[in-house]
Amino acid sequence: MTNIKDIARHCGVAVSTVSRVLNDHPDVSEETRKKVQKAVDELHYIPNNSARNLVKTTSDTIALLVKGVNNPFFSRLIKVIEREITTRGYTLELHQMDTSEDELRIGAQLTNERKLIGILFLGGRFNYTPEEIALINVPFVLCTYTNTFGSLDPSTYSSVAIDDRQAARFAVDKLFSLGHRKIAILADDRADKSISELRFQGYKDALAAHGVAFDSDLVACTGSFSDMRAIYAATKELLSRGRSFTAIFAIADLMAIAAIKALSDSGLRVPDDCSIIAIDGLDLSEYLVPTLTTLVQPVEEIGVACAGTIIQLVEGSSENRQFAFETILREGGSVRRLEA
Amino acid sequence: MTNIKDIARHCGVAVSTVSRVLNDHPDVSEETRKKVQKAVDELHYIPNNSARNLVKTTSDTIALLVKGVNNPFFSRLIKVIEREITTRGYTLELHQMDTSEDELRIGAQLTNERKLIGILFLGGRFNYTPEEIALINVPFVLCTYTNTFGSLDPSTYSSVAIDDRQAARFAVDKLFSLGHRKIAILADDRADKSISELRFQGYKDALAAHGVAFDSDLVACTGSFSDMRAIYAATKELLSRGRSFTAIFAIADLMAIAAIKALSDSGLRVPDDCSIIAIDGLDLSEYLVPTLTTLVQPVEEIGVACAGTIIQLVEGSSENRQFAFETILREGGSVRRLEA
Repeated sequence: MTNIKDIARHCGVAVSTVSRVLNDHPDVSEETRKKVQKAVDELHYIPNNSARNLVKTTSDTIALLVKGVNNPFFSRLIKVIEREITTRGYTLELHQMDTSEDELRIGAQLTNERKLIGILFLGGRFNYTPEEIALINVPFVLCTYTNTFGSLDPSTYSSVAIDDRQAARFAVDKLFSLGHRKIAILADDRADKSISELRFQGYKDALAAHGVAFDSDLVACTGSFSDMRAIYAATKELLSRGRSFTAIFAIADLMAIAAIKALSDSGLRVPDDCSIIAIDGLDLSEYLVPTLTTLVQPVEEIGVACAGTIIQLVEGSSENRQFAFETILREGGSVRRLEA
Repeated sequence: MTNIKDIARHCGVAVSTVSRVLNDHPDVSEETRKKVQKAVDELHYIPNNSARNLVKTTSDTIALLVKGVNNPFFSRLIKVIEREITTRGYTLELHQMDTSEDELRIGAQLTNERKLIGILFLGGRFNYTPEEIALINVPFVLCTYTNTFGSLDPSTYSSVAIDDRQAARFAVDKLFSLGHRKIAILADDRADKSISELRFQGYKDALAAHGVAFDSDLVACTGSFSDMRAIYAATKELLSRGRSFTAIFAIADLMAIAAIKALSDSGLRVPDDCSIIAIDGLDLSEYLVPTLTTLVQPVEEIGVACAGTIIQLVEGSSENRQFAFETILREGGSVRRLEA
């Protein structure tokens, strides 16, 4: 395999000059830079970073542990986090896990097995105990969730999330402002100590604020954020109850998409026969017919905060912080004003 | 941190008994197993696999290098591959890269830096040379692509893909069979030496077979498989040319979704005013209104073949093979028969 000496010989320059080009050092003429780059390409030279790593005494690897591989909101967030971590000179190692697994157990195992300097948990439970997080012996940040149902002292953990309860409240308020009062909800689970429970609470907050009694017959639980078949079936089952409603609050964009299909297959048009609003703001949702009305999670800001916080912590800061971002309404064509 | 001795002491059993439980050894009574498992949970014991790894003299890590993070077809495929690799006792390490980066260069760098026993390339160029693949000094499999435009000897590489040209031909034939003759195509790029070029060729094959002259005014290039805004804009531009057509072949499901939106925003309904057919068969596409008619890639079979092939190679087989899977038509509501 080609090494740096071969490149230098090929170009008739010193090894140190090749090294300067490879490391983007400014002190090289444009002509030399081009000549070296050409040789690197032609001779298929691969810089051996592992040699460089051997000199380093410490790891620079931050793990991103993703719970819920199928969550399309995560795809964009991962890209932002990866860009930020890499730009700041750290290495990001991606690990995926099923929603049925426990992220703390897997995280603890990772820190045992690999040289990690930090962990970003993407998706997880909202109910950690101090004993549980003691298992994680490197700095960590909870991304897209926080410790609402847990017993952690705020000085002991960092998190970056939206205010899920508030966002749900806002979405349902929006439906009320358009004259709706019979509003169904599509949730994953009413009491999962996680995002779904919080958004379900926000839904109930809105009902209460508008003097509407909670009706459990207007609640459909899908058991999943991303299994389209299950979401479709849950919506069909909701419709089969024969309870009338004029609008649905879906706690995630994908849920709204499957629900619209179920409504359509039952002869109901959106928004004419039923309005629908969701939370997430996927790119895709802007390209549906009709465009989905949804609360957009500020994915860029969330990703930057996740990366920035873990880097501060691995660089020695002990200041833990809980970020709560606001969502932004993206008006689409899936909700309509009810005639009085 | 709790160790295996603490568990043994807590349960009043031998360390070797705890070890047998942790390794799912059959030779343990159900009662003991339950007792140990309870202690493991309560004491938050994390098996230290790194200690186990130290004993091993070789790595068991296969890298999955994903090119095109935003490709939703890949998400499902990754799940299948991960399941297969893990079930067979190997570790899968996921690395993501941008479509602008070269997978062979990154792959070569990875094999230098990490202890890898194999690489699965997910997405890549169809035009490798023998000099280029010489950079990869571990077994590898090309997943979702093969060496159509390259100069590799078939005995030197393994690949798992669909026959892209044939699938495109089939999709366009389907439109012809319904009476369409003015058929536009939405491609990424006409000549990218990759999937888009192959599917474009399949489109031209179908036109030729049906005696229809190729019209470059019916070709719209999006420059992306997943950038909804770019796909939408390309469709709008196609419409602005004023060329009449009754159907569109979109080379990917996501392209069809953005195209349907562009058609709708121009007052054209699918399938009444324009039929549309695609390739991919995303879960999502079954939940659109109307359901997208699409050629489904057999993601389960593809994933099993990718994992099975790399495992055979890392276990010493030198038999390289190129798999070409067939797609299956999933009838939806996005195409209609043209009245004669």
